[in-house]
Amino acid sequence: LKVFSLNSNPQLAEDIASHIGTELGKCTVKTFSDGEIQINIEESVRGCDVYVVQSTSSPVNQHLMELLIMIDALKRASARSINLVMPYYGYARQDRKARSREPITSKLVANLLESSGADRVITLDLHAPQIQGFFDIPIDHLQGVPILSDYFESKNFDDVVIVSPDHGGVTRARKMADRLKAPIGIIDKRRPRPNVAEVMNIIGNVEGKTAILIDDIIDTAGTITLAANALIENGAKEVFACCTHPVLSGPAMERINDSKIKELVITNSIPLPEEKRGEKVTELSVAPLIGEAI
Amino acid sequence: LKVFSLNSNPQLAEDIASHIGTELGKCTVKTFSDGEIQINIEESVRGCDVYVVQSTSSPVNQHLMELLIMIDALKRASARSINLVMPYYGYARQDRKARSREPITSKLVANLLESSGADRVITLDLHAPQIQGFFDIPIDHLQGVPILSDYFESKNFDDVVIVSPDHGGVTRARKMADRLKAPIGIIDKRRPRPNVAEVMNIIGNVEGKTAILIDDIIDTAGTITLAANALIENGAKEVFACCTHPVLSGPAMERINDSKIKELVITNSIPLPEEKRGEKVTELSVAPLIGEAI
Ligand SMILES: Nc1ncnc2c1ncn2[C@@H]1O[C@H](COP(=O)(O)O)[C@@H](O)[C@H]1O
Ligand SMILES: Nc1ncnc2c1ncn2[C@@H]1O[C@H](COP(=O)(O)O)[C@@H](O)[C@H]1O
Repeated sequence: LKVFSLNSNPQLAEDIASHIGTELGKCTVKTFSDGEIQINIEESVRGCDVYVVQSTSSPVNQHLMELLIMIDALKRASARSINLVMPYYGYARQDRKARSREPITSKLVANLLESSGADRVITLDLHAPQIQGFFDIPIDHLQGVPILSDYFESKNFDDVVIVSPDHGGVTRARKMADRLKAPIGIIDKRRPRPNVAEVMNIIGNVEGKTAILIDDIIDTAGTITLAANALIENGAKEVFACCTHPVLSGPAMERINDSKIKELVITNSIPLPEEKRGEKVTELSVAPLIGEAI
Repeated sequence: LKVFSLNSNPQLAEDIASHIGTELGKCTVKTFSDGEIQINIEESVRGCDVYVVQSTSSPVNQHLMELLIMIDALKRASARSINLVMPYYGYARQDRKARSREPITSKLVANLLESSGADRVITLDLHAPQIQGFFDIPIDHLQGVPILSDYFESKNFDDVVIVSPDHGGVTRARKMADRLKAPIGIIDKRRPRPNVAEVMNIIGNVEGKTAILIDDIIDTAGTITLAANALIENGAKEVFACCTHPVLSGPAMERINDSKIKELVITNSIPLPEEKRGEKVTELSVAPLIGEAI
């Protein structure tokens, strides 16, 4: 068994390797002057079960190509099995044709990985669990909710409500609520008439409670920060937010810092550099979870 | 028949479309805040033979993903055939295992394109003609030599020699020499001992002649500028250089401007922005050549 890291999550890869009591395999990933990726595997992998740790986080196309090229190199080097550890699966939100003539890019990515020679995928909180069915190879779908729940459980809040920032995330909020023995709430965003600002209704009672917002991905943080402010306006005592995948692109960190969110709890499925983290962020590691799955 | 352009060569795509007497199909290629590509085809392609113009030039991974996502969208929109016009085929130089455990990325790219649903590829001066065999679909391999030769022929030089900057390019130099009825020369680079500077020997007579260096790709321009200077030192009257694919990464333009090269003749297989072009560059269009092939 050998574990290799590409460029997306080197620290997580080391933590996973040390969790299972091994060291990272040696390989170099460089770019030529024109931007083409060059990969060299520096030790034999013949007959080995190889695990490659790579989230397809930003820069997503670069990280995806690294992964595909690595799969090609491993296959040609006679690895026995090629197992992808993709804590964050990029392009997951393009998972259906919402309009005519749209691509289904997350299915395309599944095809690319599979046709390149991947034998198995380990991933975490897919944006839609249906993406598992885009693969014909085994896929292990891990859950971030237990890790996030354990963290909040240790805080021993008095009176908690778990809130989903939209209708799509209610199942996830329900799971966390079960673990924390708390009720749930839902932010019911709707636009009363076209060209009128959205109204943030809150379903469920949040008055005087500690509210915990949970989502799978926080990207530009628009939804989650508006939701947090709506909760405070509706009488919540304080608001925490958490997610598995901190994409946090564009104005995200600024919005979070300016919002009513007291603390943002994330995992390291996508690494958030120290200098971008700010005061409010707590990062939990998924290395033990992934280590167990390997 | 419909022609679509992605982001690599919009001008060339328009020229190709107008050469065959049609207009470009409407599609938008955007990126989300986190860098993921979003493509929308804005008109019906059902039952159409579709041509997509896209070089996988720098940023290569971005351009390749655009192309793959476009193929996916076209396939799901019931296009009758999906034809790729790839004037420059990126990753072509990773076409064999030179060392153990290397990938063969140009074969990987062929597989990705084919498994995504491409039906046919039109390309130009592949770095190795063997890459044609990496595909199981029809591939049209066009040649840049006639275009470059015609340009130099119109200059009516007195006494010309066509020079290959390395051993690998002799066949190409021979083809141009045949068209210009000129002799050939070869730059014979070799390192007499390890850690000793390379010596540039010139095979063939260049004294008093106009030398034309020809290559398929000029990337960082190290080889070609050293070759030009060696030709002048060996008595060539003047030196022109030409190539099909102006990759021109990193220090390339600076090296060319500082070199003994009098004029650099390129094609628009990769667009070179006006502001990067400098005094010495002449660009020839491959639009008519590709238009004929469609
Ligand atoms: N990378 C992305 N960033 C922002 N929005 C996206 C991204 N990928 C897909 N989408 C959009 O997000 C929506 C799907 O999200 P959801 O409804 O939560 O499944 C679709 O309208 C997509 O067009
Ligand atoms: N994008 C690139 N930039 C520079 N060198 C490359 C690139 N891709 C491959 N190579 C190297 O170029 C050599 C192949 O070029 P050639 O010998 O001319 O076919 C190999 O040693 C490759 O490692």
